[in-house]
Amino acid sequence: MSSAPFNFSAGPAMLPAEVMVQAQEEFRNWNHSGISVMEISHRDRAFMDMAAAAEQDLRDLMSIPDNYRVLFMHGGGRGQFSAVPQNIAGPDATVDYLHCGIWSDFAIREAQKYVAQVNVVGATVDTPQGRAISAPETWQRSSAPAYFHYCPNETVDGIALHDIPDVGDVPLVADMSSNILSEPLDVSRFGVIYAGAQKNIGPSGFAIAIVRDDLLGRAQGNTSTIMDYTVQAKDGSMYNTPNTFAWYLSGLVFQWLKRQGGVEAIGRMNHAKANKLYEYIDQSDFYSNPVHPNYRSIMNVPFLLADNRLDGEFLQQAAAAGLVGLKGHRFVGGMRASIYNAMPMAGVDALLDFMRDFEKAKG
Amino acid sequence: MSSAPFNFSAGPAMLPAEVMVQAQEEFRNWNHSGISVMEISHRDRAFMDMAAAAEQDLRDLMSIPDNYRVLFMHGGGRGQFSAVPQNIAGPDATVDYLHCGIWSDFAIREAQKYVAQVNVVGATVDTPQGRAISAPETWQRSSAPAYFHYCPNETVDGIALHDIPDVGDVPLVADMSSNILSEPLDVSRFGVIYAGAQKNIGPSGFAIAIVRDDLLGRAQGNTSTIMDYTVQAKDGSMYNTPNTFAWYLSGLVFQWLKRQGGVEAIGRMNHAKANKLYEYIDQSDFYSNPVHPNYRSIMNVPFLLADNRLDGEFLQQAAAAGLVGLKGHRFVGGMRASIYNAMPMAGVDALLDFMRDFEKAKG
Repeated sequence: MSSAPFNFSAGPAMLPAEVMVQAQEEFRNWNHSGISVMEISHRDRAFMDMAAAAEQDLRDLMSIPDNYRVLFMHGGGRGQFSAVPQNIAGPDATVDYLHCGIWSDFAIREAQKYVAQVNVVGATVDTPQGRAISAPETWQRSSAPAYFHYCPNETVDGIALHDIPDVGDVPLVADMSSNILSEPLDVSRFGVIYAGAQKNIGPSGFAIAIVRDDLLGRAQGNTSTIMDYTVQAKDGSMYNTPNTFAWYLSGLVFQWLKRQGGVEAIGRMNHAKANKLYEYIDQSDFYSNPVHPNYRSIMNVPFLLADNRLDGEFLQQAAAAGLVGLKGHRFVGGMRASIYNAMPMAGVDALLDFMRDFEKAKG
Repeated sequence: MSSAPFNFSAGPAMLPAEVMVQAQEEFRNWNHSGISVMEISHRDRAFMDMAAAAEQDLRDLMSIPDNYRVLFMHGGGRGQFSAVPQNIAGPDATVDYLHCGIWSDFAIREAQKYVAQVNVVGATVDTPQGRAISAPETWQRSSAPAYFHYCPNETVDGIALHDIPDVGDVPLVADMSSNILSEPLDVSRFGVIYAGAQKNIGPSGFAIAIVRDDLLGRAQGNTSTIMDYTVQAKDGSMYNTPNTFAWYLSGLVFQWLKRQGGVEAIGRMNHAKANKLYEYIDQSDFYSNPVHPNYRSIMNVPFLLADNRLDGEFLQQAAAAGLVGLKGHRFVGGMRASIYNAMPMAGVDALLDFMRDFEKAKG
């Protein structure tokens, strides 16, 4: 199952091959019911059991402490850009945001609708070794923010903040849409962790929010009820009909990840995959990566050709070789290899082979 | 493909058997790509073409005029309970709601968060012939409401308002979650039509909003951007990553519906299916339906046993006979047969056979 095509799409992204085989097999006959998992009530006992098992598997994988609620939400990661300020900050609050890239920027602009003051504490900085994130000691933090928000892995820019910021008692909120479950994480450092599903979890139109329970009960009065953490926590994420197929498929992904050895094992593999790509890019004059070595993503590896007039040819020939989804985000251009959990080493090796051949032919 | 099990679930509901066969076949190899439709970017050309074709098929099926925008939204029907007032009414507005049942009630309570005054113009009334909806001439309408909202088919109660209310120039808004595409409809009478997908359209976690374009550009400032009609209209429902698999599967359902002869043909079939059930129930002393004959749903047929101590046995034996999803909503009890577009006449016939046998054995 580790053969072409290899799908480097940034999201919606490839899902584990084993998961897709199982989902196809039981597509019209789930749990020996003779019907599809997407055709039954979310209040059906068998569905509820599956849903609870999926949550437990995620708790096991991330070692989520008991004082955190796991919510399965509508709307993807971007829905959380409004859900976070609406749920855990009052309209008169000040909130702190670290600006790490494009998705941080969108989150900041959305938060401005719901609180009195969005304070940007710091941002990316260009250094001789590439783009980095300003050092914590330079951040202009507020005295009493309702929370501190950052995006530890910027999908478009390929920039990552590998150290968890130390913000004391301020609730730390992280948009982990593109790096959740990619390596071990100390959940207890966070107030809220959220992620759109369509990278390391499952299909799109779905999000997970992991919320420390002391942050419940604070929603602004005009929060849409389907996005209200407190309501969804009370109703087991079934205040309204959830995205049942996404919940099911995410559950299969969690089971698969457990079989791989969990986040420790997948984390070692993810670092190995990323290192291989960065090492090759760094020794090449034909390809380059614009990010400082200490701030490079292990999930999204953007790279530029020295001559961008070859971009179209690169993408065309890569696709012909079964390497798809390599086009960089429309905001930044170039290429991007997204190598989430589901991407096997064989995919990275195939990409490297292609990049070497292309460099040889055109370099 | 018209054999047991027959799935009478109110939603998530059964999808057309032909659609599920096709979706299973191409589950891991969509459009000859070698990967799944849920694993590609929503900005991929092939996906965009599919998405546009799905919209066009829906426009064809419903004869949607050019001055309406079709939006593919996150969050299901319940997400629209807040989206409607946030998008087309100001915070100082008065809005009119007709209270037709349980879902009307939820919609009213959600709207109260966003406007100054939610005026309930009328409600259900109990008559000697069963539950009905108060007559339009008795409605206490406001002088200048921002819109008039009603739910023409109440899924839980099995109550329907078959005549479109005449509200003059006031934008008419309808929650058609459980009756969209069930029979011909004059879309031009409406300001907004919305529907959660999981009955007549596709899987859950998805909604469609059909919005007359003069109602765009009015969103309240704190509307979550993913729920902003104007933004999603401008961005072709791709401001954020949509629920791509649901969009795809809905497109297959639209194609299937065209092959059935469209809403005229399916409407005749739906009336025939419902009439058969109501006729049998009405002549029986063992089963009853609580709704006035003029206000009965053609999609959701609730019925009660004369002796509700037999409910458990009825459901158990029905399930053993391959008739599933017949349990009434937890708020009202009893039974409910949801017979959406995808339910073939053979399913209704199988249910009737079972009901006759059960009555004979227990009546």
